[in-house]
Amino acid sequence: MTAFDDLLAHQRETVALAQVAGRLGWDQETMMPRGAAEQRGEEMAAMESVLHARRTDPRVGEWLAAAQPPDETGAAHLREIRRVWERATKVPARLAAEIARVTSVAQGQWAEARASEDSAAFLPVLARVVALRQEEADAIRGDRSRYDALLDDYEPGATAETIGAMFDALRPGLVALREKVLGATPPPGLTGRYDVEDQMALTREIAAVFGYDFTRGRIDRAVHPFSSGSGADVRITTRTSEAEPLGSIYSTIHEVGHATYEQNVDPAYALSALGQGVSMGVHESQSRIYENQLGRSRAFTSWLFGRMGEVFGDLGVADAEGFYAAVNRVEPGYIRTEADEVHYNLHVMLRFDLERALIAGDLAVEDLPGAWNERFHADFGVEVDRPSRGCLQDVHWSVGLFGYFPTYTLGNVYAGCLHEALRRDVPDLDAALARGDTSGARDWLREKVQRHGARYQPREVIAATCGAEPSEAPLLRYLEAKFGALYGV
Amino acid sequence: MTAFDDLLAHQRETVALAQVAGRLGWDQETMMPRGAAEQRGEEMAAMESVLHARRTDPRVGEWLAAAQPPDETGAAHLREIRRVWERATKVPARLAAEIARVTSVAQGQWAEARASEDSAAFLPVLARVVALRQEEADAIRGDRSRYDALLDDYEPGATAETIGAMFDALRPGLVALREKVLGATPPPGLTGRYDVEDQMALTREIAAVFGYDFTRGRIDRAVHPFSSGSGADVRITTRTSEAEPLGSIYSTIHEVGHATYEQNVDPAYALSALGQGVSMGVHESQSRIYENQLGRSRAFTSWLFGRMGEVFGDLGVADAEGFYAAVNRVEPGYIRTEADEVHYNLHVMLRFDLERALIAGDLAVEDLPGAWNERFHADFGVEVDRPSRGCLQDVHWSVGLFGYFPTYTLGNVYAGCLHEALRRDVPDLDAALARGDTSGARDWLREKVQRHGARYQPREVIAATCGAEPSEAPLLRYLEAKFGALYGV
Repeated sequence: MTAFDDLLAHQRETVALAQVAGRLGWDQETMMPRGAAEQRGEEMAAMESVLHARRTDPRVGEWLAAAQPPDETGAAHLREIRRVWERATKVPARLAAEIARVTSVAQGQWAEARASEDSAAFLPVLARVVALRQEEADAIRGDRSRYDALLDDYEPGATAETIGAMFDALRPGLVALREKVLGATPPPGLTGRYDVEDQMALTREIAAVFGYDFTRGRIDRAVHPFSSGSGADVRITTRTSEAEPLGSIYSTIHEVGHATYEQNVDPAYALSALGQGVSMGVHESQSRIYENQLGRSRAFTSWLFGRMGEVFGDLGVADAEGFYAAVNRVEPGYIRTEADEVHYNLHVMLRFDLERALIAGDLAVEDLPGAWNERFHADFGVEVDRPSRGCLQDVHWSVGLFGYFPTYTLGNVYAGCLHEALRRDVPDLDAALARGDTSGARDWLREKVQRHGARYQPREVIAATCGAEPSEAPLLRYLEAKFGALYGV
Repeated sequence: MTAFDDLLAHQRETVALAQVAGRLGWDQETMMPRGAAEQRGEEMAAMESVLHARRTDPRVGEWLAAAQPPDETGAAHLREIRRVWERATKVPARLAAEIARVTSVAQGQWAEARASEDSAAFLPVLARVVALRQEEADAIRGDRSRYDALLDDYEPGATAETIGAMFDALRPGLVALREKVLGATPPPGLTGRYDVEDQMALTREIAAVFGYDFTRGRIDRAVHPFSSGSGADVRITTRTSEAEPLGSIYSTIHEVGHATYEQNVDPAYALSALGQGVSMGVHESQSRIYENQLGRSRAFTSWLFGRMGEVFGDLGVADAEGFYAAVNRVEPGYIRTEADEVHYNLHVMLRFDLERALIAGDLAVEDLPGAWNERFHADFGVEVDRPSRGCLQDVHWSVGLFGYFPTYTLGNVYAGCLHEALRRDVPDLDAALARGDTSGARDWLREKVQRHGARYQPREVIAATCGAEPSEAPLLRYLEAKFGALYGV
């Protein structure tokens, strides 16, 4: 065994254990009896402790120093293993444990504060989380900014500067489009009640339509939809609401985008550092192109309208065109996760700017609610009337996720780039989508993006696919064309 | 931190990780998509490797040498931790890995051989399993016999000699009872078809009747019923058959016996060496007393007859007395897991004798099928007509479980002892059971047995409860009285 072989064998076991930890997380949200929460906390902590010990194992450093990659793929393995190892070894064990402890408490306090609409109750623990993440960033950043050091964990190679420039270029076009669309008459939405078991059956059918492999996955109900796992065991969850059938359908298509990315990674990379999606941004590009550019397209919604009519009867809209308009209704709202394609990225930009300021120390945590509400009013034109619709709406900051939010919009930007290239390479796509046939699109995405796993860096894989560096322009062109036509503006 | 504190903290994390491994096993039998089997194998192996490293950690030996238990309970912690540590450290890592590898292969070959009724295809790998377990026994046995060394893992403190003496005393009475009962006319069984969803709903109701705490557990379907987990997360499975509703009900009551033992352990022992059932025999005593002495009693079946009539309508038997007889039908059969109370222990004794001979080297593996069939004919009076009804029927030996089988009958013996003591202490039990009220029995079992977890040695807890050393006599008295009356013999 060479040092390279030793390293990959060690990594294989680490990845297998990380899969086990992921499966526990899935279980917690879907199957676990409620009385098991406290014990499960200890089980998770024990798994994290095992994983931390493996990730900081001094032998990994020795193997990394000695390993000779046999080829370019081998070099990519080393790159990914080194990135995680350097980060893990730079964070003192005391700090890592304190972050785990405090974020666990903070998540509970956040949930309580949100339920009681009391942001003041949450701010002290949030201040502690911010301080700990600043300390962690200082430990790992080298000559990078604190924020870039944190961002790198979710989007390797990205910086606040490049992302910020992209967002600055995107923003005026979104604001202008928003103004125009909100000046027009909104289309009617769906009406009626929709049996939730029928919804579950339909989500399974639609997951299969989008290529989800049920022999290596399953769909269950959970409070929040998510995708979990890699390789041969990638599970998704969905939610159902009797009054609102589009939620179960589009959250399922979104999660199937995440899940098929994982299912379609080259099996040669299974249980290795390359055996999963390369970044949060590229992951979100897959979920968003499935959900929006494909799932909310005029062509696909014409098929979906027919299928929903067969399952549920009258939907309260006259025809496929009315259904397409209902699926793409633009409405101002407080909540990011409920936002339409025009508003969504404005919600993200607000968070990106505020969290950069928090981590840089330019915004005090105690001033966060005011800063949020002021910015929200400036961007959306309405006053935030309660914290659960303002700075308490997302779980992310409570669990220490700073640097994560921008990957949502980065994913949309990447999806815009990929969609233009897809339309260029697969010109007859709409005819297939109108038959409920997504195979042309997903074969292309598997070939260009998904099968590579983490073999290439995020921007590399997008640039190689699209023939150009990623840019916000395709997303903006897509949104302007789609919503301009829909709203006649 | 003293050495004792360090040891218990280490043990707590080990137990938490063992819970995680157990949860994976549950997932595999209930939820896992079938395409995930190979990846799951690597995940399980990685968890086993982590657990093995913790169990053989040299620090455990140092702590054990230095630890001063603060009290008798502390001494019990040390006793349990030392037992596992001594065993784990005496088995060479190479041998432990080889056993894991070979039994994994052997289980697959057993399943194939059973499906194709080809015992010759299984014998070579079984010979390898036997040889490895002999080698393991030699590594750990000290001055004990090989078989006793293996047995100790499932039933601490038991020996083949004491168990054999008990079985020898039990056997003639069982054989005589069997002869008498089989000479009488058998009662009719249930007829009809039983909706499986209604069966699942009824198993949930009956699990609650027997005290299963759903806030710390759940019931799912699986091919083989089992109970899994400890403390705050103890899950059970059941199976349903449209033609045979008693299977789902009595396998559920059986598993609830196992599960409530785990759920009712003193919370002070959670995630410690004392936080689970003390032995397989005591475990089986709980499942069997729930299933048989309580669940198949005249009093309880009179309630169950009424409840099943409400759910399913006509059961094909005239009255509660006919139902009681149908539930307790005695029939000769090939399969241990389907055997009635009269036959069951004869199946176990056959295996006990054969596996002792295999491990001692007195019976060659190649001679096993012949020896099985000869013994079966002698004990049951019929020829084994195919291997799946003979020596291939149980999974145990393929996965290396030698020394496990006798704990089934030991459990029945313990259940007999406990049942006599229960009837003495709770004289009005039948009136409650006839109302579907099991609380008197289960409160007594929780108080006397279940809450102690592994605090006391197996025989200690039975003897303290019953006021006498465990003996086969109460079981025999119970069986003779029950089946004598039922069959008028």
